[in-house]
Amino acid sequence: MSTRPTLSDVARLAGVHQATASRALNPRTSGRVSPVTARRVRAAAEELGFTPNTAARSLRMNRSFTVGVLMPDLINPLFPPMARGIEAALAPRGYTALLANTDSDEDKERHQFDVLLGRQVDGFIVATARRKHPLLDEARKSGVPIVLLNRCTDRKLFPFVAGDDSAGVSLAAEHLLERGHRHVAHVSGPQDMSTGITRARAFRHAMESAGIGPDQAPVIPARAYTVAAGEQATGELLDRHPATTAIVAGNDLIALGALHVLRARGLRCPQDVSLVGFNDMQFADEFQPPLTTVHVPHHELGAEAAHLLLELLDRSDLSYDTVWAAKTVLLPVHLVIRESTADAVDRKPTRG
Amino acid sequence: MSTRPTLSDVARLAGVHQATASRALNPRTSGRVSPVTARRVRAAAEELGFTPNTAARSLRMNRSFTVGVLMPDLINPLFPPMARGIEAALAPRGYTALLANTDSDEDKERHQFDVLLGRQVDGFIVATARRKHPLLDEARKSGVPIVLLNRCTDRKLFPFVAGDDSAGVSLAAEHLLERGHRHVAHVSGPQDMSTGITRARAFRHAMESAGIGPDQAPVIPARAYTVAAGEQATGELLDRHPATTAIVAGNDLIALGALHVLRARGLRCPQDVSLVGFNDMQFADEFQPPLTTVHVPHHELGAEAAHLLLELLDRSDLSYDTVWAAKTVLLPVHLVIRESTADAVDRKPTRG
Repeated sequence: MSTRPTLSDVARLAGVHQATASRALNPRTSGRVSPVTARRVRAAAEELGFTPNTAARSLRMNRSFTVGVLMPDLINPLFPPMARGIEAALAPRGYTALLANTDSDEDKERHQFDVLLGRQVDGFIVATARRKHPLLDEARKSGVPIVLLNRCTDRKLFPFVAGDDSAGVSLAAEHLLERGHRHVAHVSGPQDMSTGITRARAFRHAMESAGIGPDQAPVIPARAYTVAAGEQATGELLDRHPATTAIVAGNDLIALGALHVLRARGLRCPQDVSLVGFNDMQFADEFQPPLTTVHVPHHELGAEAAHLLLELLDRSDLSYDTVWAAKTVLLPVHLVIRESTADAVDRKPTRG
Repeated sequence: MSTRPTLSDVARLAGVHQATASRALNPRTSGRVSPVTARRVRAAAEELGFTPNTAARSLRMNRSFTVGVLMPDLINPLFPPMARGIEAALAPRGYTALLANTDSDEDKERHQFDVLLGRQVDGFIVATARRKHPLLDEARKSGVPIVLLNRCTDRKLFPFVAGDDSAGVSLAAEHLLERGHRHVAHVSGPQDMSTGITRARAFRHAMESAGIGPDQAPVIPARAYTVAAGEQATGELLDRHPATTAIVAGNDLIALGALHVLRARGLRCPQDVSLVGFNDMQFADEFQPPLTTVHVPHHELGAEAAHLLLELLDRSDLSYDTVWAAKTVLLPVHLVIRESTADAVDRKPTRG
């Protein structure tokens, strides 16, 4: 490929010294160059297709004005709105988000973290946290500014922004209890993630509070937040607990897997089995039937995480040793009742 | 925030010279340091949470091993699989994709392009092309390696990878003609994008070939590839052409908008109006009814674009002046027949 034009090419074409060309092209210093010269330099830069090396400029300011964002799975419709919320909050401050998709793969995540650090990002927003997370332990030592989004580590190392998972599961459970369900199961998310364990605990608590014991309120963990894992776990649930009349799913993709299994087994939703999802992801309202689910404000979560990170970057008095830096922000969620939940009807345990 | 540890901190803790620490931490040179020393340096680096500055290393090699990827809209389920395809093809070569979401906003796109250039990406994969695109005209002059994905400019400036849009629309049109439809409309994508114009042209061609004139085969452009734009354009279509019995939508989001409008007007899909989408995006099979649509291999498109870019980066003999560099690669598509299409039934034009 042909080489990119340099500042010296621009200076030569404009017939000025390189330092003059540099001043003319930097918005902060262009006032120190005559308007005629500045115009000539800009025209030369445009003709050549010259792009200023913002890396060099950032080096002088010791800022790159970029933020690395680690997302576990862009195919999960949960994450794109978070990315947009992050961008919307960063843009007015001149920061740009560089997104990396880790595919929930630890090696890939470590590599992308290192690459982004190498590209001199000023900080990270990490939506990939697991409860035990060696990379984040190390990152804590290195002092790079990080905010966790959606999932957190067991040890509170960083500021953390998420939806109120416990409150959301309580709303789902209460809705089913009110409709008369007494055999309610939770097809939970993976238990090595904070979302999986928090939602499962909230489910158990809600059922115990209603006087429903673990036999009638089983928790079956899916091995991932995917449709396939939801199918597998729901199959297991229906084999082992055929009297189940309602399911609280760990998220909407797991719920979709549950819908597939119910359909395959000739069970109607909601007439035979009611189903509640979690997240209210894009298209949850288009499913057959439209999914009752817990709405989580993903755009706002992303924006909140970006604001926390900007605060970390701005305030030199903040360190991870201050209380502030490990604070948790939970945004409110609400139940969206659609057509996948109905009154309980006794089902004879004819299966299993 | 506390400052990040430097190489000199690592050297001090390990009790070695900085040059030795550097050699020990670089996989290509660590063999030149005794194993004991290398281990001590690595332990010190780990204890301090040190990350090598890959920017400096890349500078020596004149490569950053990063690729900038411009996506118009991550919320459109089309694009995440492309991003994964890109990553899958780049990873074995040690390249990492840095994704930027432009929200189809020209200013935002220009800013993100500049930021990524400033972060020294080696090249770009651009999925945001419009038919006239000043930024890409300039980028062409600057010589930065670029491959276009999914959408192209009118002037062929760069290698381009897409699904075979014309073939896809022909398949959709033929399917509807075979089911007896003679009043078929196209709710097209925006006509300032190559996908919008290519699909509309293919639709007109298919209808003309079947002897169906423009009156019975109207094209109504949606102003964007969104559900809302699909609703608006479909409303206009049904007002102006109430005899329509089948719709070819510009993409699946437009098709979803069409479904909403049909439902709101008491028209059943497919009994009253058949509907074909385009892309076979995630969840198209979950809609009510499951959508007949043209399957486009988005993951493979992303991978193909990445391979073309790697070839551009590898071969110094290639320039944009060679025929190769402006080649077009169209991957095959196929029709997926689900439940949104059926035989034509005459509808009396009672509306409008």
